Amino acid sequence: MGELFREIEYVEEALRRYLNVIKQPSIEIEEVPLEEALHRILAEDITANIDIPPFDRAAMDGYAVRAEDTFGASENNPIELKVIGESKIGDPFDGEVNENEAVKIDTGAEVPHGANAVIPIEYVEEEKDIIKVYKQVAPFDNIGKRGEDIKRGMLLLKNGTELKPWDLALIKSIGLKQVKVYRKLRVGVFSTGNELIDDATDVTKLRGKIIDTNRTMIKTLLKELNCIIIDYGIISDEIDEIKNAIKKARSETDILITIGGTSVGERDFLHKAINETGTPGVIIRGITASPGRPLVLSLIDEFPIISLPGYPVATFVDFMEFAIPVIEFLQRKRGYRVPNKVRAKLVRRVSSKPGVRHYVRVKLTKKDTELLAEPIRITGSGVLSSVVKADGFLIIPEDKEGYEAGEEVEIILLRNRIGVWE
Amino acid sequence: MGELFREIEYVEEALRRYLNVIKQPSIEIEEVPLEEALHRILAEDITANIDIPPFDRAAMDGYAVRAEDTFGASENNPIELKVIGESKIGDPFDGEVNENEAVKIDTGAEVPHGANAVIPIEYVEEEKDIIKVYKQVAPFDNIGKRGEDIKRGMLLLKNGTELKPWDLALIKSIGLKQVKVYRKLRVGVFSTGNELIDDATDVTKLRGKIIDTNRTMIKTLLKELNCIIIDYGIISDEIDEIKNAIKKARSETDILITIGGTSVGERDFLHKAINETGTPGVIIRGITASPGRPLVLSLIDEFPIISLPGYPVATFVDFMEFAIPVIEFLQRKRGYRVPNKVRAKLVRRVSSKPGVRHYVRVKLTKKDTELLAEPIRITGSGVLSSVVKADGFLIIPEDKEGYEAGEEVEIILLRNRIGVWE
Repeated sequence: MGELFREIEYVEEALRRYLNVIKQPSIEIEEVPLEEALHRILAEDITANIDIPPFDRAAMDGYAVRAEDTFGASENNPIELKVIGESKIGDPFDGEVNENEAVKIDTGAEVPHGANAVIPIEYVEEEKDIIKVYKQVAPFDNIGKRGEDIKRGMLLLKNGTELKPWDLALIKSIGLKQVKVYRKLRVGVFSTGNELIDDATDVTKLRGKIIDTNRTMIKTLLKELNCIIIDYGIISDEIDEIKNAIKKARSETDILITIGGTSVGERDFLHKAINETGTPGVIIRGITASPGRPLVLSLIDEFPIISLPGYPVATFVDFMEFAIPVIEFLQRKRGYRVPNKVRAKLVRRVSSKPGVRHYVRVKLTKKDTELLAEPIRITGSGVLSSVVKADGFLIIPEDKEGYEAGEEVEIILLRNRIGVWE
Repeated sequence: MGELFREIEYVEEALRRYLNVIKQPSIEIEEVPLEEALHRILAEDITANIDIPPFDRAAMDGYAVRAEDTFGASENNPIELKVIGESKIGDPFDGEVNENEAVKIDTGAEVPHGANAVIPIEYVEEEKDIIKVYKQVAPFDNIGKRGEDIKRGMLLLKNGTELKPWDLALIKSIGLKQVKVYRKLRVGVFSTGNELIDDATDVTKLRGKIIDTNRTMIKTLLKELNCIIIDYGIISDEIDEIKNAIKKARSETDILITIGGTSVGERDFLHKAINETGTPGVIIRGITASPGRPLVLSLIDEFPIISLPGYPVATFVDFMEFAIPVIEFLQRKRGYRVPNKVRAKLVRRVSSKPGVRHYVRVKLTKKDTELLAEPIRITGSGVLSSVVKADGFLIIPEDKEGYEAGEEVEIILLRNRIGVWE
């Protein structure tokens, strides 16, 4: 029993140490139509091949002119120009604007050759094909210049960007219909435990069996990360069966997530199975998290295995703290994740054991413009329902002993929404 | 021209007024398998039909006993009990524990009838079928009590909850395989504008035509909201064509989003088409947002239409501020959305016009443990690339004239990630 406790590592150190030894797999690149590329990871730099707008365009309705022809025009001293045509959106004027000529133009339409400014319509009086101009304009007044949005050669998006709606719009604007992205990460999942079942015709009649809810939670969390899930089901507590499942996952997936069997005890065959399958085997065994301590991080050659504890809140905490950053690293996502957080005033003191990182479930309520955070009192050990009813987690780091009532704290939101339980 | 400016409304007032007049449509309910219900909206209250755990279970490996039989046991004065069987996970002991009897038990296994406590294995010495107990235990020591996670009759999830992974796990734990959710919201989308095209074989050769990037952005934003999108494409600037598209959308969808043609000008047929299609027609026309002012919110009988401006940053801002809350209201989502925000120190003064709500794109950089927010300088009017390069928006409310350099401000994140441009 002592072994685990001697070896446990600080949460952030454990993650850093693991990220240092795993490698990004060489992931194939595929080309997908733009609108299907939402949330995929860009596998190329995208550089503008054109100017946008591709021509000078009118920023107002009015007349395209040579600015110099209007110099000196005023309310009392209008200048007359000859209207030689019209430039509409999609139907530009093809001729040239010469001295003392003007072309009627719509907002967004192409400014014809020769013209270098637009006089807004309200400073102009039109009579047949002659306009009186009551105001002078300077060169480039009321013109959107070619390339002012995007200049040819400009780097628009970097390899590794998770594509958001505005990224797709930008890519479309330069005429691309497809985009190169990394294929989705393939993640294997299994639970271990003889007590687990997936199906029960009558849950009230279960004798000692427990429905495997963790695997459902982990699979849907992986869906949120846009992974392909290969579900190996429930594996019984037999070293050989676990070894076979690991070998299968290693040949079919990029990373394996196992659930349960991570504590040190007589029925915990998982770490033995990992170490017997290959080297280096188990790298991290136990972290300073509560809940979440019995986490096991392993590597078989270059194949990463994250073994989450079976107690549901610990399963979730360790997934959030370890599986997400590791998966995003393997996916080659650029930048670093910023969890959705709010500040709230703690209504009750919470204490923690120094040296241990505590994850306290809290309920948020609004009081006037302020948010109040109330730690949820937990009795019992399963307590998945406490996660469901929580609005978020308050993390008490290893070097603190808690927070006082009235302190302003940061809460990591579970739902992006507050008040689901009001 | 004056009409628009007289009528414009404060952003929050406009939203409140619109939400007050629209109604939640009667949305059909469908039953879907649990793992497909991720992010769907629950259409029922879920109440526990069982206790979880459904029986008292051992919290440690040891022996199930009657606590009273151990009273007085100590290191120097062990008490002897007779082992009458074993309770394993999935294989419980069916008999009863009587006076001075014990049943060997595994963590998680069912505590047999008659027993009311578990003695941890380390306080016991076993010799054949007799154990020596070196410590006394109190009733319920080391037992996880029936119903300690979930009590029969307990409300687990409320109608209107957007289902997250841990919600699905909880639902599975009470034996449900399907769940009732509202059918997905059907959202119609079209762009207006004769200048728009979807396809260009050579974007450098476009004369006055512009690729419709906004519709791609809006469609993928709607995908993020888990909507079914009915795409009506690009509608030309003809009142009758717009009216026909509105009528079609009204018969096929729950809400229509149109893009472009919202400014007041000679070519803007949209508001006329809406008002000629039915009553009450246009309700809000213009809001105090920059960018985003020319927003039009309408209603044809009970059918809502949100008309976003065509300038891409305004399209996005008004989608975020109006389309998202309206759609989530129609979806019947419980609670209120909390956008992903971070605090950062503003590196440069930003000023704004009082009475107008400004949306300033900013770039974030990390300096030691602090985030710095740098407003992006915008030239030109299209500037979709400025959204792509921004990490988030700084909102300057109507009653402020800006923020000073060095002030701590809240930035609404666009990506959930920072450093994509580093």
